Amino acid sequence: MPMCQSADKKLENFIKECSCETSFKRVVDQKVKCGFGLQGVCCRLCSNGPCRITPKSPKGVCGADAHTIVARNFLRNIAAGSACYLHVIETTANNLKSLGEKREKIKGENALEELCEIFGIHEGDKHEKAVKVADAVLADLYKPRNQKMELVEKMAYAPRYKKWEELGILPGGAKSEVFDALVKTSTNLNSDPVDMLMHSLNLGISTGLYGLTLTNLLNDVMLGEPVIRKAPVGFKVVNEEYINIMITGHQHSVFSHLQDRLIDADVTEMAKAAGAKGIRLVGCTCVGQDLQLRGEHYQEVFVGHAGNNFISEAFLQTGAVDVILSEFNCTLPGIEPIAEEFKVKQICLDDVAKKSNAEFMKYSTDDKESISEAIIKEAISAYSERRGEISINIPKDHGHDDVITGVSEKSLKAFLGNTWQPLIDLIASGKIKGVVGVVGCSNLTAKGHDIFTVELTKELIKRDILVLSAGCSSGGLENVGLMSPGAASLAGDNLRAVCENLGIPPVLNFGPCLAIGRLEIVATELAEALGIDIPQLPLALSAPQWLEEQALADGAFGLALGLPLHLGLPPFVTGSEIVVDVLTNSLKEITGGQLIVEEDILKSADIMEDIILDRRRALGL
Amino acid sequence: MPMCQSADKKLENFIKECSCETSFKRVVDQKVKCGFGLQGVCCRLCSNGPCRITPKSPKGVCGADAHTIVARNFLRNIAAGSACYLHVIETTANNLKSLGEKREKIKGENALEELCEIFGIHEGDKHEKAVKVADAVLADLYKPRNQKMELVEKMAYAPRYKKWEELGILPGGAKSEVFDALVKTSTNLNSDPVDMLMHSLNLGISTGLYGLTLTNLLNDVMLGEPVIRKAPVGFKVVNEEYINIMITGHQHSVFSHLQDRLIDADVTEMAKAAGAKGIRLVGCTCVGQDLQLRGEHYQEVFVGHAGNNFISEAFLQTGAVDVILSEFNCTLPGIEPIAEEFKVKQICLDDVAKKSNAEFMKYSTDDKESISEAIIKEAISAYSERRGEISINIPKDHGHDDVITGVSEKSLKAFLGNTWQPLIDLIASGKIKGVVGVVGCSNLTAKGHDIFTVELTKELIKRDILVLSAGCSSGGLENVGLMSPGAASLAGDNLRAVCENLGIPPVLNFGPCLAIGRLEIVATELAEALGIDIPQLPLALSAPQWLEEQALADGAFGLALGLPLHLGLPPFVTGSEIVVDVLTNSLKEITGGQLIVEEDILKSADIMEDIILDRRRALGL
Repeated sequence: MPMCQSADKKLENFIKECSCETSFKRVVDQKVKCGFGLQGVCCRLCSNGPCRITPKSPKGVCGADAHTIVARNFLRNIAAGSACYLHVIETTANNLKSLGEKREKIKGENALEELCEIFGIHEGDKHEKAVKVADAVLADLYKPRNQKMELVEKMAYAPRYKKWEELGILPGGAKSEVFDALVKTSTNLNSDPVDMLMHSLNLGISTGLYGLTLTNLLNDVMLGEPVIRKAPVGFKVVNEEYINIMITGHQHSVFSHLQDRLIDADVTEMAKAAGAKGIRLVGCTCVGQDLQLRGEHYQEVFVGHAGNNFISEAFLQTGAVDVILSEFNCTLPGIEPIAEEFKVKQICLDDVAKKSNAEFMKYSTDDKESISEAIIKEAISAYSERRGEISINIPKDHGHDDVITGVSEKSLKAFLGNTWQPLIDLIASGKIKGVVGVVGCSNLTAKGHDIFTVELTKELIKRDILVLSAGCSSGGLENVGLMSPGAASLAGDNLRAVCENLGIPPVLNFGPCLAIGRLEIVATELAEALGIDIPQLPLALSAPQWLEEQALADGAFGLALGLPLHLGLPPFVTGSEIVVDVLTNSLKEITGGQLIVEEDILKSADIMEDIILDRRRALGL
Repeated sequence: MPMCQSADKKLENFIKECSCETSFKRVVDQKVKCGFGLQGVCCRLCSNGPCRITPKSPKGVCGADAHTIVARNFLRNIAAGSACYLHVIETTANNLKSLGEKREKIKGENALEELCEIFGIHEGDKHEKAVKVADAVLADLYKPRNQKMELVEKMAYAPRYKKWEELGILPGGAKSEVFDALVKTSTNLNSDPVDMLMHSLNLGISTGLYGLTLTNLLNDVMLGEPVIRKAPVGFKVVNEEYINIMITGHQHSVFSHLQDRLIDADVTEMAKAAGAKGIRLVGCTCVGQDLQLRGEHYQEVFVGHAGNNFISEAFLQTGAVDVILSEFNCTLPGIEPIAEEFKVKQICLDDVAKKSNAEFMKYSTDDKESISEAIIKEAISAYSERRGEISINIPKDHGHDDVITGVSEKSLKAFLGNTWQPLIDLIASGKIKGVVGVVGCSNLTAKGHDIFTVELTKELIKRDILVLSAGCSSGGLENVGLMSPGAASLAGDNLRAVCENLGIPPVLNFGPCLAIGRLEIVATELAEALGIDIPQLPLALSAPQWLEEQALADGAFGLALGLPLHLGLPPFVTGSEIVVDVLTNSLKEITGGQLIVEEDILKSADIMEDIILDRRRALGL
């Protein structure tokens, strides 16, 4: 049966033997693509449509041309992606507020102090401060559009803030900016592609500073800060002797109560009464990546990260998963029939991610105790009902035991001696030529599952370019061994020596896509240390296998920051020369950023290396 | 040249002679439609796509089936439509708040008192009360999703409120409900079609009560209440001896300062110095329909309503328009090249509706005086620059002089003697068989421009069914004479006698689409007077030529109210039997509403007549 290839050959072989259909097969069925959709020149906003732009019909019925249609579709996608991340930070801030109000355990006191410093909060005890931090975030999210958010200036690098102010893209209340982007892209409203692209950058700023960066920092307070450590990854992490809950999502703090509860003695006793050794969480998608990042604090309950979004359908077919607990994407609809077949109980905690055949347990901070109990009950019951009937087949050779995890802007700096100077020196000396953030999702269309990500990363490290990763890209890179120290052997001589000297891999694992915000703190702090603006850094971003609307919103943040952003597949914008030209060309003069769409792996590496070399020259290196 | 037909033959003939391309021609160019788009089974949420559902590929790459894809697309459309109307009420509430704070003229003091009564506001003078009313609306719009809006219970008919509460569809903060609908419909999030359809109803409630009803009522305070009167309509209303500003949009209150200013003596003097008799507003789209509704208060500055959305491209080609002033949709992109050709100055007051080649003057209540001056300056300058160069050709035989306008829930009740009893008696006696609200947009695909609307309306009145209209449908109906008293001759004998006796047409003109909210007040008050729930009334809604996402959000309100809702073209949902079945069938048991898609005009009239007869029987009539 024809199917999609993966960079992870053991995974690919496992999928070949799977009984239930997966995305790897469906991508073949959906091979024939609509050219109008790919180019973004299809509009279905009204009942006169759908309209499609062709040489013989260069405008829709209403008169919208390709530029208007493409820009509308693109802005709406970015608005949705931004909305997703802002939903996550809103939930996170509400959870922090509740934790403060209920005076619950704060696992990251330093992280709280640092946030208070940034926000200018000096009064109150730690719980009161946690509430104030949360309130400051929520107040900004809920401002109307004509009131600028107050934390942007506190969070952003000063030269960037100034640039955004000049450009008129400082965001008003983030939720209202998304809301009005949706209005703007509705029928017979905005038709100005440039206005819509500038709105996309505005959304990128709030996505980046709130949806990404602040989500990490607030989670650091609640869940504990990342600590660099070795951890296992891959299918091997799951142990059939336990009741296994596979987690998917991005809103880690909604099950932190459950996490602590699962390892209480009475719960373990209940599990034992059912014949298991206990109940464990196994990671999948970004929430697993985030838990892996904070693994130091969850050594007992969390067995490890199985892999990224597109492994979930295969992983369920090991038979070892008893419950899928999801609170956000990336929870593929493809898991639903597999869960039925393998008698896996599906529980959703947030209706935005309600799966069609899942049980919905509406999460709220006031009900978390009863929700945890209900989940535990369901988990035990699912275990009891299914284990006799479902055979278990875990490929124990899939994965690695020595992935370096727990890398963050702070743990990395601490590792370097609480200063960026060693990294700056390595870059200045040329031992590290530059840095590329290989980030974002996994998809199945840019060469196959994780293929572009993995091959591009290999090509970059070979050229002595240090790779930092965050997102499902990390899931792919760690499962093929590139985040294990041994991967140093694949790097160029200079980078290899650095890695071997420090005992690190040439690809650093920042964890979930949310941690793109951490990468951008690193970029900011490096620029600050050097006294330059971000676009001057020998640094590029690549989301070779971007998948979702969220990735586009992340990308808009990168472009607002002035970074070069490579994509291995174009967004659906190629039908408009204006939109393409603004993104790939004019933007260099606007924010300093640029979109680079390159579908060839070697050429992509060449382009990013050239940018890095140009920047090095401009810095006199 | 093949082109779309119109129910308005004079318009059609005029368009045939137009030099610039219009939608009437482009609808022919876009005749070949994408079947996937029409059925809603195309998904372009991620870079694995676009995916299309076919018998051989029944799922997208991610595993989403037709039901998930259709429901996601549909909910996202409704969210956008709802966002549009909520943007309008937010702007309107901000304008009312500013008017109160600045202690400016309140033109509808009774309307304010009634709102205060509904909201429970008893303290303060009228300006303070205006601020409190506005604040109550804004506070509700900005609530988070987990806090229910407070005005819903005050505004809604009690049996409906109870039903919505039982169903769990009472909306939380309206903007957050839209926001989370956008999240829900993003990549790999919600896959449950029923959950998404229930969310659509939730959005319908806030659209209806806030976006529609409260926008009308707040505007009544600021702009003056509708008064029943005769008014001219059609292209004939424009007078080339004046400087003419064509208005498009839905946010009437943003140029109410301009309206008053335009007839000041000094402005008229400036216009005279340029060779004109003064400056006048001419209506197009819903904002013209709204100004027509309130025409009693704007007799000098407003010359009349030229027509609905799809007349705009033709109307510009009379050459008589000097400025297009737009603040929202429905401002077709098609007007942009025509404005260039006819040297018409385009000014946009709200960036959500920024046209690509228009000047953007960002409206704010604090800048309204300077904006009015800038618009006046541009209008005089456009007049001076273009009038020598552009020939003017106004078809003076297009339109009518005796359209009955100014019909509202209050003016109609007042007309009936401040009681609904006469109408109830006429219905009870069978002289009026029932009522159909023929509402919504105009499109070019349901038989042609206004053809379904006009022919269906004729068929209904022939059967002694009274028609109430709101939206671009009104623009079509009045331009073909159905809202003039003489149209009584087209009604069935019973209805004809009623109309001739009262001196009214058989089709009552409630004005803009916003006034669908007024129709629904009429329905509520009739139900209340009869002591029954809304689904028991001999009443149906039809949006035979719905066009926009906003129309779908309006429709969701109708369905939440429990009304039968006919559409002349299906929304893009026919690819999912589940979605179709819920909307057209199960909903009867849920809210009492039902979607009826019928593309044949006579059959549509039959179905609605049958529903009315059934309801009459159930009421013992």
